[in-house]
This record gives sequence, C-alpha cells and structure tokens, in this order.
Amino acid sequence: MTNPSPDTPQREPTSEGVARAAKKIAALLPPTPLLPLEVGGATVWCKAESLQPVGAFKIRGAWHRLSDMGEEERAHGVVAVSSGNHAQGVAWAARRLGIHAAIVMPNDAPAVKLANTRALGAEVVLYDRPGGEDRDVISRALCSERGATLVHAYGDPWVIEGQGSAGLEIAEQMERLAGGSPTRIVCPCGGGGLTAGLALACPDAEIVPVEPEGWDDVRRSLEQGRIVPVQPSPPPTACDALQTPRTFPINFAVMKARGLRGISVTESEIRAAQRLAFNTLRLVIEPGGAAALAAIMTGKAATDGHTAVVLSGGNVDPAAYAAIVAKPSHD
Amino acid sequence: MTNPSPDTPQREPTSEGVARAAKKIAALLPPTPLLPLEVGGATVWCKAESLQPVGAFKIRGAWHRLSDMGEEERAHGVVAVSSGNHAQGVAWAARRLGIHAAIVMPNDAPAVKLANTRALGAEVVLYDRPGGEDRDVISRALCSERGATLVHAYGDPWVIEGQGSAGLEIAEQMERLAGGSPTRIVCPCGGGGLTAGLALACPDAEIVPVEPEGWDDVRRSLEQGRIVPVQPSPPPTACDALQTPRTFPINFAVMKARGLRGISVTESEIRAAQRLAFNTLRLVIEPGGAAALAAIMTGKAATDGHTAVVLSGGNVDPAAYAAIVAKPSHD
Repeated sequence: MTNPSPDTPQREPTSEGVARAAKKIAALLPPTPLLPLEVGGATVWCKAESLQPVGAFKIRGAWHRLSDMGEEERAHGVVAVSSGNHAQGVAWAARRLGIHAAIVMPNDAPAVKLANTRALGAEVVLYDRPGGEDRDVISRALCSERGATLVHAYGDPWVIEGQGSAGLEIAEQMERLAGGSPTRIVCPCGGGGLTAGLALACPDAEIVPVEPEGWDDVRRSLEQGRIVPVQPSPPPTACDALQTPRTFPINFAVMKARGLRGISVTESEIRAAQRLAFNTLRLVIEPGGAAALAAIMTGKAATDGHTAVVLSGGNVDPAAYAAIVAKPSHD
Repeated sequence: MTNPSPDTPQREPTSEGVARAAKKIAALLPPTPLLPLEVGGATVWCKAESLQPVGAFKIRGAWHRLSDMGEEERAHGVVAVSSGNHAQGVAWAARRLGIHAAIVMPNDAPAVKLANTRALGAEVVLYDRPGGEDRDVISRALCSERGATLVHAYGDPWVIEGQGSAGLEIAEQMERLAGGSPTRIVCPCGGGGLTAGLALACPDAEIVPVEPEGWDDVRRSLEQGRIVPVQPSPPPTACDALQTPRTFPINFAVMKARGLRGISVTESEIRAAQRLAFNTLRLVIEPGGAAALAAIMTGKAATDGHTAVVLSGGNVDPAAYAAIVAKPSHD
C-alpha cells in the first residue's frame, strides 16, 4: 500500500513524543475530567474529551503537530482532510498560531461541524463524498499548489503522539481518583490515531479499540495480522467520525506490536450509550464518541480492575441528537 | 415571618465554614471543570456543576450537612424537601454515610429526578404540589414521628456553606486559567442557598443571582430591602429547581449585607442558553441550571473583567430536552 500522504514526515511515533506532547498540551488545555460511572455493578471512568474547546480529542494531535512546525512551514499553511473533529482541531490550533488552514470536508458532514470549522477561521473546501469524489486528490492538489503541509487525521506521528496525551492524563487521574493505574482503556476507533497514541502512552494497560459494525476494519486487520480495508458497501452509520476506509501502516504497526484486539458495536447499542451519557453523565456525546461506552454497556468490553472509557467527541446535529434522546432506551 | 424549619440549628453561616466545607468536599469530589465560553466577544468561565455525581451542586451542601452530624442524629435519619436536585444530593450523602433519608417530593417533579432519588436508595414521599398540599406540614410530621433531622434545601447554615465551596473552587481555577480572581459570579437562584454561599466564599466578587421571570422574589426582595414572596399565581416555568416561594432570613441577611442586585430572565432566554450549552459546551443543562447563562447571553449581566457563570444542574426529562434542542434558536 502506498502512503496517500506524501507530505507526512516518516518517523515513528514514540512514548517520549507522547510525553512531550502532553507537556505542551497541559500548558494550554486543562485536563478534561475523568468521571465515574456505574455500569452493571462496576465503576468505569469516563474521559470526557467532548469537553475540549473544539468538542473532541482531536485538538491534542493538531496542537502537537502545528506547534512543532517551523517558521517557513507555517508561512505556507496547512491542509487537513476531515469530516469535522480533526477539522476543528486543526482550525483551532492554526488560528492560535496564525497559520492559514484549508480543510477538505465532505459535503455530507454534520452542519454543526462545517459551521464550527468555518467559525474557527478555516477555509473549508467541500468534496462530494456521496458522489465518490477522492478527497486525497483534492488535498494533494492543494498542498502542491500552495506548498502547504498536509496534517493527516491519523497517519501522522505527531498526531498519534498528541492523541496519546489523553492516556497520560487518564493514568494520572486514575491514580489520584481510583488509587491505581488503568487496567484497560476502551476507546472509539476510526483510523487508529487515538488507539495507537494510547498504546504508546500506557504500555501496561490493555487498549481496546471499538468500531461501528461494518466499519470494523481495524478489528479485522488486527485479527488477520495485516491491514485490510472496510468491506465494499459498508452499512450506513451515524458515526461520521469513525468512517475511515482503512488504517495506516504507522498506526497499525503500533497496534499490532501490542497485540490489540478490537470490538464492534451496533448502531442501536451506540444510541443506548448516547442516552446513558445524557441521563447519567449529563454529557452530549456524538455517535462516534459513544462507541466505546457502548462496548462497556453491552459487556463486550471487560470492566474488571480500573477501566477507563474515552468519550471522544460531542459534535452532533441538534435534530439528530434530539431524535435519539427522545426515543425509548430499547431503540 | 416564622421559620418553617424549626429543626434547623440557628447559627449563622460563615466564610470559615465555607472553607471547612470546601476541604471536606475536595477530599471526596474532584473539582468540576471551569470551561471557557466566548459570548459576544468576551470570555466567560462556566462552572459545570451539572457534572457532579448527582448532576447538580446540591451534593455540596448535603455532604457538608450530613457529614457533620453526630452518631445519635444519624441514627434517626434525615428528611428533606425538594423537587429533585437537593433530593439527590441528600440521598447521595445519606447512602454514603449509611443514614436513612426520606425525601418529600412534588408529584409533578421531573420523572428523571424521582427515579434518580429512588435509585440512590432514598425513601420518596410524594405530595400533591398542583393540588396545593403543604410540603412543610408533611416534612415536619415525618421529623417529629421519627426524631429525624430536617435538611432544608437552602435555609440552613451548613447547606449555605457547602454550596459556597463552589465559589472557592471557581476562585482557585480562575486564578490558574485566567490569571485573576473572579470579578463577578452569575448564578441561578431559587431560595438563595448557592447565592449566599458564593457571597461568603468570594467577598471581593460581585455575586449576581438570576431567577425566571415571575419567580424573581429574591430580586424584588433585594430591591425592597425585605423578604417578599413570589407574587400570587406566578406564570408557569420550566425551571422546577427555581420554584421557591420565598427566601429565608438566614439567606437574605447575607445577600442584603452584600448589597446584591438580582436579574430575571424569560423562559425563551433560558431555552436559548440551554441550546448554547448543548452546541458549544456539549453539556446537558436543565432549565433552572441555564438561567445564569441566559443572563449573560442577553447582556443583562455584565462580562467585563473575569466573569464566572454557574451551570448549576443537568437533570432534565429526555422528551422535554429533546423538544428544546430540536427547535430553532429564536424559539
């Protein structure tokens, strides 16, 4: 497989890089809370990344990447491809650093994500996702026209290290609140940026990536020991943030080396998790952000020891969210 | 005016009591986050008390009160009167301390608050609020039958001091995050427990109580310099947590001594604040919990200097919340 992001520097992400990212991020963003939740008699600890300024953990990797760029690189701007959360993370970091950001977004992205990305001052370049337009072609063209740097949403060592900083925060908070280090961290998984980052951050914890059914290419890749893409014509999913066609070698190498095993959850299980977050944690969680909690609720992920679950994002269109919250729990 | 809670010990709440409460609470509950929010070009700092384990700040006063009770007192149990948030706070503290709690709740309280209070192991005693049944008569009868201690929702020195601990947290967080002490704290106001507590906690900040229109007895009391009740036949309000008929002398003394001035907001302004919290903070906030944010959004409360706003609770029935979130912002 060729690497579709030729502008991404090819170095390996490291635990040291995660620690450095965590320090940079701690100087700017207070830790998101780690909230206790009782599920089936066990206490699990919910990392509320939905409370980041852009409503998702993606701000971490974007900040680590952009703040490490030199003067010359910054002057030519950055390009990112994203359905919305990485978009907002990059736009936020770029605005703060005075860097021009062009974000290639699908025309069927949630309106709230499009609006928020524009509100953060980024240039939004739409592509026709349902029509099959290739976002990588568009982003590459932008990069070569402008000499801009591509900031990939997951296949980038800085991005992986930045997302991993959430794991160091979890470990510190878990020690203080529960008196021990994390036994496992269950997290939503799209391309594997967060999963690989957590694996680097917490070498002694079991890291459990969770994907929507039919979009569980990481689960199948880990099972087969090689990268396999999402199968043709995957079912529709409400998890726009987890619709990634395949993981990248840079992510897979970390996940495979750790012998991770993935889990898949259904759309209905994800909605139930969103309702639990609403009723019991009073948190607005988007479908993709609730996938890991769904794995906990259903018993698909274990909860013995000290279990953390990442609630990765909360950017959801109001009407869609209202429909989910208003429906009974068995829907 | 006679004091309707004869069992409440008549001492004054103090700043020293707030500091002691804050220490006890810090040992048990991590600080709720203070989240930045841009409103009309200014940054205000939102104290997310909706993220407390019971979904409201009421856990603070309840914990300070119950944990200070002696063995003998604990053995006879406690009685509280509440539409739901104080109920859950008392039930939570009682369960943790092994104290029996009977909670007198209106039969028109949000179903979620009734369910949560029962789930915390409390005995729920319903009274007919729409039918005009007197909750104080019921609670007094329970107390004298059982020798139980009444834990009033706001007219109690421990409760006031406990709620004030939120102010000390805000001051510490504001210093760290914004580099200064709070210029003002804008807070939802029912009976004045939180308002009086914040006034004791932060002597140099302007404390601004906010009530729903028609239920603004504290605002009018402060204007007139004496306690006046809610006017007869007040309009319906979605803010079940702020439907208090009048403040108590113990609360009013603190508020009056500080020369506070209140603000009232409309139901529509409150809904807009709930939507802002949903879209921008990804927090589920109940109507009463959003009153102070509504005062900020409308410009009725000032935002110069370092302004904190308390988002006091997030216990809301799903269907009611869905209807608010799904509607356009001008509703």
